[in-house]
Amino acid sequence: MELLLKDCTQVLTQDNKRNILKDIDILIKDGIITVIGKNLSTTGKMIDCKDKLAMPGLINTHNHLAMSLFKGYGDDMPLDRWLQEKIWPAEAKLDNDSVKYGALFAIIEMIKTGTTCFNDMYLSSEAVLKATKSTGIRGFIAYGMIDLDNPEKTESELKAANSFLKNFTPEENGLILPILGPHSPYTCSRDLLEKTKLLAKEKNLPIHIHVSETKKEIEDSIKDKGMRPIEYLNSIGFLDKNIILAHACHLSEDEIALIKHAGARISHNPTSNMKLATGGAMPLQKLLNAKIPTGLGTDGSASNNSLDLFGEMKVCALLHKFANNDPETASAQTVLDIATIGGAKVLGLEDKIGSIEVGKRADIILLDLNDTTMVPNHNPVSNIIYSATGACVDTTIVNGKILMENRTLKTIDEKKVIENVNEFASKI
Amino acid sequence: MELLLKDCTQVLTQDNKRNILKDIDILIKDGIITVIGKNLSTTGKMIDCKDKLAMPGLINTHNHLAMSLFKGYGDDMPLDRWLQEKIWPAEAKLDNDSVKYGALFAIIEMIKTGTTCFNDMYLSSEAVLKATKSTGIRGFIAYGMIDLDNPEKTESELKAANSFLKNFTPEENGLILPILGPHSPYTCSRDLLEKTKLLAKEKNLPIHIHVSETKKEIEDSIKDKGMRPIEYLNSIGFLDKNIILAHACHLSEDEIALIKHAGARISHNPTSNMKLATGGAMPLQKLLNAKIPTGLGTDGSASNNSLDLFGEMKVCALLHKFANNDPETASAQTVLDIATIGGAKVLGLEDKIGSIEVGKRADIILLDLNDTTMVPNHNPVSNIIYSATGACVDTTIVNGKILMENRTLKTIDEKKVIENVNEFASKI
Repeated sequence: MELLLKDCTQVLTQDNKRNILKDIDILIKDGIITVIGKNLSTTGKMIDCKDKLAMPGLINTHNHLAMSLFKGYGDDMPLDRWLQEKIWPAEAKLDNDSVKYGALFAIIEMIKTGTTCFNDMYLSSEAVLKATKSTGIRGFIAYGMIDLDNPEKTESELKAANSFLKNFTPEENGLILPILGPHSPYTCSRDLLEKTKLLAKEKNLPIHIHVSETKKEIEDSIKDKGMRPIEYLNSIGFLDKNIILAHACHLSEDEIALIKHAGARISHNPTSNMKLATGGAMPLQKLLNAKIPTGLGTDGSASNNSLDLFGEMKVCALLHKFANNDPETASAQTVLDIATIGGAKVLGLEDKIGSIEVGKRADIILLDLNDTTMVPNHNPVSNIIYSATGACVDTTIVNGKILMENRTLKTIDEKKVIENVNEFASKI
Repeated sequence: MELLLKDCTQVLTQDNKRNILKDIDILIKDGIITVIGKNLSTTGKMIDCKDKLAMPGLINTHNHLAMSLFKGYGDDMPLDRWLQEKIWPAEAKLDNDSVKYGALFAIIEMIKTGTTCFNDMYLSSEAVLKATKSTGIRGFIAYGMIDLDNPEKTESELKAANSFLKNFTPEENGLILPILGPHSPYTCSRDLLEKTKLLAKEKNLPIHIHVSETKKEIEDSIKDKGMRPIEYLNSIGFLDKNIILAHACHLSEDEIALIKHAGARISHNPTSNMKLATGGAMPLQKLLNAKIPTGLGTDGSASNNSLDLFGEMKVCALLHKFANNDPETASAQTVLDIATIGGAKVLGLEDKIGSIEVGKRADIILLDLNDTTMVPNHNPVSNIIYSATGACVDTTIVNGKILMENRTLKTIDEKKVIENVNEFASKI
């Protein structure tokens, strides 16, 4: 099946040279970018891309999809009160149906704001998986495990994670992939972390874990374990190239060296960290200097409260300029790299996605160059980071399939999902 | 002339009690809100406001409209290099026609993102005024004065400012008002500041001035004048209730007391300050504790690079939570207050705008409650600050006149303006 993106006014390739191409066609066959050139034709569908900018779809490396149900349910509170008074009581009311609609609603928001790949960790993962498969988006789904040092819970959580893995069959198209999700070093016992690691090695799976999010977490780790969280994960043999560390706000120089040596990867969530006041900015430039793969994440909608990575990119640039008192750090190009090819590296998909190059999967978004946020066009990268919002995304393509065209969703009944989300929300 | 907003699903009044009304009508007559109630009817136009949220239009208290022409022209640079290498050479190419289209383009962006009133300071102010009058938006325009201690320039700048004032005739509808704009204490001589003050008293005009934006400005002021910028302005009798201080990032306790005592007002520009790394967050909570009128501003499009106050509100909340390491500060309601009634107070228009109340001018925006950013509706204030962007604004009304309906502009030819902006941009 072919798809031709005809006469793209600009193509932000995000290839190694960061080439920006002009007035060019992109031919996609069976989900793969096969030709980038002039005067191409097709027997399949063609999209007129005049006054459009084509760029790689954005990659959200840390999310809790179904928490879209709790967007705006609790804000402006410290983390512990937010969890105890708001989120945990609300989560007790979730069932498979509400999680399904919560996940679908998050996917609607992602597709409409140009995100083509996500990394999810939550509960009722079967419901998330079922919802996700129907949408055509790309992503990883983890069943989030928490045992709080309770040995019975350790076994039941591992059993649930194992059981979830059985939903992934080899004959699938590989758009949705499994990942293991032990929640964090402070909510998971050493036993659970070690057994998760064994399972990951046996099944050749990556692991997604929260770590070093707040200052309190660091202090507690030093008190309880005699070392900082990353040092602890390293000491139990947990840290390697298949580990995705979400947040990682507070890292010592030694911990950065440990992450570098292990080949582990980072998901950076600037808005969530600022909103919850986790106490200091992630050392972005140090991580990039060490060539540690770093991607961008929104965290869940209850702690952001948006899945729009355009907004997240701007906040990322602003945070690091402010925190380092340096207007030159976290440049527009640096931030765009994190949100595209950087995210692909974090998810181990750099051979498949993250840039527009022949041979890669066609995860492409088209921006409207006549949108006020993209005018004037002195520098498209600057406009994308500092001016645009996800509302300038006109068309979203994943694996060569059009999920949104002219801002109309093609695979999800938006009205029905919103009705169901509102209905659930009215009950909590 | 009547306008009826029928069956508003929610009305965020921003009145003294911060009432949120449900399923209610708003009747507007000759630009004034005359009735808020049930089952109202009209002989004039009616807008069906089912699934819409009505709220006061947002107020942008610091802007340089025509700098929209330079959006994305220079980023990720220190202030001095940015001015010398990028902005000043580009400004040398401006003429009345380009400034007109730059101003119109900024107004398009504002109307489309729910801003109904602005406070501008720039050059070619006659061109800005002429463009603005045709659009129906509300605002203040200043001719920006800079003399750099050159006495000839002092006189010519005052002459230009005086001449600009002659464009405002008593018979106008009062939507666009004059304000005086001495650029800053470091670009204006004491003589210029004192003569501007006399002129302001004579004509009963407010004054808009940049102050205490960067750490360097504070250091230079102490070195050159023996005191900090606000202390200096106070010492020359400049500080009173008609002064709007833009930026004011770096304030000592003594300076806050001086501002409070004088009754002066503040325009806070968080994104611009973070992007240019001006070195520390404005002491927002201290200013609010002192009950100093404080509004929100975007600064010009060249240093933000967006005029969307929805994004600005989110950045404002995030900045202060991060800088103060406190998730409870800069709450959603606090930030919404700053961007609405707070801005009205800063501009001395609190009797006319900033809230939806009987007797006030109808500067009202309608948000689409089915937009993904506004769903679910646990808390509309939270959704507005943390989730929404200006793209959720469906309709923008100023002084009872519809400037945008169903996202279609009513008073400006958007296509023509964009063509002209692109043409100018291609020349610099």
